[in-house]
Amino acid sequence: MSQPKSMRLLKLTLLIVLLSIPSLAQSREQRSNIEKDVLAVMTRQSGAWNRGDIEGFMQGYWRSDKLTFVSGDNVTRGWQATLDRYKKSYDSRAKMGTLTFSGLEVNVLSMKNAVVIGSWSLAREKDNPHGKFTLIFQKMKDGWLIIHDHTS
Amino acid sequence: MSQPKSMRLLKLTLLIVLLSIPSLAQSREQRSNIEKDVLAVMTRQSGAWNRGDIEGFMQGYWRSDKLTFVSGDNVTRGWQATLDRYKKSYDSRAKMGTLTFSGLEVNVLSMKNAVVIGSWSLAREKDNPHGKFTLIFQKMKDGWLIIHDHTS
Repeated sequence: MSQPKSMRLLKLTLLIVLLSIPSLAQSREQRSNIEKDVLAVMTRQSGAWNRGDIEGFMQGYWRSDKLTFVSGDNVTRGWQATLDRYKKSYDSRAKMGTLTFSGLEVNVLSMKNAVVIGSWSLAREKDNPHGKFTLIFQKMKDGWLIIHDHTS
Repeated sequence: MSQPKSMRLLKLTLLIVLLSIPSLAQSREQRSNIEKDVLAVMTRQSGAWNRGDIEGFMQGYWRSDKLTFVSGDNVTRGWQATLDRYKKSYDSRAKMGTLTFSGLEVNVLSMKNAVVIGSWSLAREKDNPHGKFTLIFQKMKDGWLIIHDHTS
């Protein structure tokens, strides 16, 4: 049952090529699925916000002390501190208003990370605050979560 | 010269393990080298800025129409437009002042991408503007370059 040397070499080469594929090629379909997953997180976030559910909104963020949230000239560190900050800034349903995300652009960096840039706006009775954000998503064992948010 | 089947199997297994290592394991040393490379880009940037060389500063950015630069509520697209915007906003040496980056934190996402968050400040004769930034770096064939900047 022994094989000629050339056949073994061919098999090895084929194996190397096959093993290289998953790390090299991110198919269009894989990217498209990541885009969908990431945008679905954001849809769930705005849905929660617009039900007045800040904790639900926060489910889109990595539940870790390493979460970083930059807003203007301020950096908040950790999931709990970010939740506390939101609860303090939006302590009534009227202040929360209706959140809309728009102009979303997803940049899939790898199978593990993606960046979303876009605009946010709050429709409120008396004003309409708005701005831009950059979100860095990471694939965790329980799905895609925001590990860093820079909002301006 | 033929090998027993078990030996061939062992060799194949060993090959699979060896091929898996580069994609799975990012050694501490590799991360540390990426951190150094990325911070070196920023040191060159502030050096150029502080010589009044905006084009030199811009060498840290990806020379592509796909570069995105978010500042406050504004998005600039493309390397050239970003350069033009800088030249317009800082049209004298006095306006450029002396740039300092501080509190830099590098998050190495993969062998190909890293995120830097930190603070910037300009020491100028009459004022001292300052803020935060999030930079997304990507490894290109000519080194690590910023593909996205969110400054606030």
